[in-house]
Amino acid sequence: MKLYEKLAAEMTEAVRRGVFAPGERIPSVRQASQQHGVSIKTVLHAYALLESLGIVETRPQSGYFVRDAAATAAALDRAAVSAISAISAVSDQQRLTRQPAPQASPVAAAVDVSRLVLSTLRSIRAHDAVPFGSPYPDPSLFPWRRINQYANAIARRQASWNLIDDLPPGNPELIRQIARRYAENGVPVDPGEIVITLGATEAINLSLQAVAKPGDTVAVESPTYYAMLHAIERMGMRAIEVATHPVHGIDIEALARVIAGQKIAACMVMPNFQNPLGFQMPDARKQQLVELLGAHDIPVIENDVYQELYFGDTRPSTLKSFDTRGLVLHCASFSKSLTASYRIGWALPGRYRAQVEKLKFLNTLTTPSVPQVAVADYLRHDGYDRHLRHVRKVYRQQARIMTAMVQRFFPAGTRMSTPQGGYVLWVELPERVDSMRLYQAALARSITVGPGMMFSTRNDYRHFIRLNYSYPWTPQTEAALKTLGELVTQMA
Amino acid sequence: MKLYEKLAAEMTEAVRRGVFAPGERIPSVRQASQQHGVSIKTVLHAYALLESLGIVETRPQSGYFVRDAAATAAALDRAAVSAISAISAVSDQQRLTRQPAPQASPVAAAVDVSRLVLSTLRSIRAHDAVPFGSPYPDPSLFPWRRINQYANAIARRQASWNLIDDLPPGNPELIRQIARRYAENGVPVDPGEIVITLGATEAINLSLQAVAKPGDTVAVESPTYYAMLHAIERMGMRAIEVATHPVHGIDIEALARVIAGQKIAACMVMPNFQNPLGFQMPDARKQQLVELLGAHDIPVIENDVYQELYFGDTRPSTLKSFDTRGLVLHCASFSKSLTASYRIGWALPGRYRAQVEKLKFLNTLTTPSVPQVAVADYLRHDGYDRHLRHVRKVYRQQARIMTAMVQRFFPAGTRMSTPQGGYVLWVELPERVDSMRLYQAALARSITVGPGMMFSTRNDYRHFIRLNYSYPWTPQTEAALKTLGELVTQMA
Repeated sequence: MKLYEKLAAEMTEAVRRGVFAPGERIPSVRQASQQHGVSIKTVLHAYALLESLGIVETRPQSGYFVRDAAATAAALDRAAVSAISAISAVSDQQRLTRQPAPQASPVAAAVDVSRLVLSTLRSIRAHDAVPFGSPYPDPSLFPWRRINQYANAIARRQASWNLIDDLPPGNPELIRQIARRYAENGVPVDPGEIVITLGATEAINLSLQAVAKPGDTVAVESPTYYAMLHAIERMGMRAIEVATHPVHGIDIEALARVIAGQKIAACMVMPNFQNPLGFQMPDARKQQLVELLGAHDIPVIENDVYQELYFGDTRPSTLKSFDTRGLVLHCASFSKSLTASYRIGWALPGRYRAQVEKLKFLNTLTTPSVPQVAVADYLRHDGYDRHLRHVRKVYRQQARIMTAMVQRFFPAGTRMSTPQGGYVLWVELPERVDSMRLYQAALARSITVGPGMMFSTRNDYRHFIRLNYSYPWTPQTEAALKTLGELVTQMA
Repeated sequence: MKLYEKLAAEMTEAVRRGVFAPGERIPSVRQASQQHGVSIKTVLHAYALLESLGIVETRPQSGYFVRDAAATAAALDRAAVSAISAISAVSDQQRLTRQPAPQASPVAAAVDVSRLVLSTLRSIRAHDAVPFGSPYPDPSLFPWRRINQYANAIARRQASWNLIDDLPPGNPELIRQIARRYAENGVPVDPGEIVITLGATEAINLSLQAVAKPGDTVAVESPTYYAMLHAIERMGMRAIEVATHPVHGIDIEALARVIAGQKIAACMVMPNFQNPLGFQMPDARKQQLVELLGAHDIPVIENDVYQELYFGDTRPSTLKSFDTRGLVLHCASFSKSLTASYRIGWALPGRYRAQVEKLKFLNTLTTPSVPQVAVADYLRHDGYDRHLRHVRKVYRQQARIMTAMVQRFFPAGTRMSTPQGGYVLWVELPERVDSMRLYQAALARSITVGPGMMFSTRNDYRHFIRLNYSYPWTPQTEAALKTLGELVTQMA
């Protein structure tokens, strides 16, 4: 057990014994470092861990506090069952991805992924840092001026428009434009199947809720995009992580074994430009996956948010396009390709359409009308293709730069993914590097990274990080990556 | 059993036996009326019932179709257990409200409230009808021009603002402005407790999810606002309806008996200007309610969306203001008082704040940023009070007009509520009038009403309707209400 793990365990015990009561302030980083005779870094790391476990929370300018009674109790339960063991888990020799043990774990019972993600996102906001840890695309690439003009014109025009117009399934013109877009891209869909949501987040949540119930087990990729884990956590389901190849995607044989071994209520995958691995699953494998799941009547939630950000010549196929039984619930949004702030997503739920439409109505009633119409107007009045050609070119270039720079600045034993689209790079660091420690050390230097812990319920990726390359490459960026490489070298 | 009930039961049986397969068209209204030798109205009513049960769906210009396999199966189960019995339930002699049997019913197992609500809302949209059935305030009363100006200015200013800025709990300035508003109204709150949501709908959903789990029983008012039933249905919980006095609100003695009789996970109420009854619960009773629930450690979700639309001199108190144990989850929004289309709501979740903030993050990630900032700007730059004084005056007047006109046009035996705020009137029609039949007949004349069935899981309110008086009173409105009165007289 590492020093910071020991310290975290001690603090957890102290909270359990009531030494530090809910709402109470725990010793400052400096105090703790003196009391325990450990470095500031060690304390920072231990506290970050306690925060990610939901035992303490930070308050700006005032330090770390034990969270409120209810939350703490829950967190302590989690910590009891798994936290301390989870953080001392050892990783095996497989590269870039892992071969997880074939057992489902309730997401909330593992290291608290959503809390870690939220605090990571906050750190991006808090510090005006170099955003290697950001999950977002560079917003300056969005045609925001144009879209805002449409929104403004609509708002003027529709003095008294209100919710009624765009009740689920959503604004008819927007639905038509989305269907047209799929058709242009060679993957025709039925407009009547589309349900507009609040970003892909809601589309994924409602799709999962439509096909599975609390306590059910859901198969996901390993590593998996944390939003998938959030959806599972939100519903109190269990996740089972399936080995995923960094180039071919989810291991279909491994998945078959999992299905043979236990009841799987649903499968959640990202066949195109998976976050964090960036692969594009080959068509043959997409078809195999759909057939395997179809044979067992298992619905699959396809997250295709990066569909427009391909580096190849054409938009990749979808699982949906191989689905003959209405078992694929296809989810996407405009947040990665057109505007993140309008939060317009959609689902193509196959045979579960009626339930998803109804759940949308129950969950958030309706998606705001003006953003729906504004996006529809933008899509109708051209420009989207030109915009996307530009964005793809930029990301393709920046992927190359980022890859070259990591090779240049990071120590031997570093491996990385080869993104086929999107804007994130998955980096495996030398075994001895702990990405949570790296995350803290980098943050102290105003650099953010995405710690590997966010992409698994079982901390399989402690020496991995995700790097965002959507933002312009500047001397500052380069200096930051150099610093990051130096930190890694020290820790290796 | 009434004729239309018999017909509905027969059709249900036919679908069950596969006479009409999923996706198949059922006989047209005219055909059915000939085949069964019943009136068009009876068939329309039977089909509306089948639709509200989720067994058939309408498709524009093409008639009624049996819904897809999955949906139909579920619907048939529901129909089997309760639909036919539910529609033949008899109502007792109590006035305006009912004394429900003290037994919980899973919302989805009762007449499908959310489906009926959605089709009612659609009918408002479909027909350019006189909107007595609308749940929305008159949007022309909103200061939309002003708010849109702010939104446009923000969109211009924030070239590259993105999600990060307003992650849960939400935009700090908006949170400050909401807290300031409460303070001005004499019900101070802690800004640190506020979580911004997508309308009150999401606030209520997340609050309920934070305090109860699927299968739990939740106590609600009778009649209850259907959004409460939606939240319960969304989570697969059970609702138990508690007698509610049209002036004093939920019957605290009855609630105490319910609590003594079974495990209640939470209570959901609308103490101010309850929809549909319009009462303002007296302070003494608010305090009693908080104390009763506190004594049993039962969390209560307080829906206070009409807080600003009072007819009295001051903003009424809240359950929150009597809460000393953090058990009140207070939910509200700007959708009734400022802008419906921006979908800005919030929760004050008491001791459950941490869970609600996290659930918000899991459910929809974040509430769109520009609307949050635009509303904050509007609130900061005055005008809200003046706007509200005007709106209150208008609604107070129109409540008087609507009341007088119902007295004038409706037959003897009609009773109605005395709204203390808000913009809906609850009307009890003579026993023999069936509000679903009235709903259909009125729709045929381009008039919408809110059928009583929407406000209960057990069809206790079949001869009740809700009337919206937020829209300007015009000769057309008056003619429509006269027509409605004539329909009621015929049916009585």
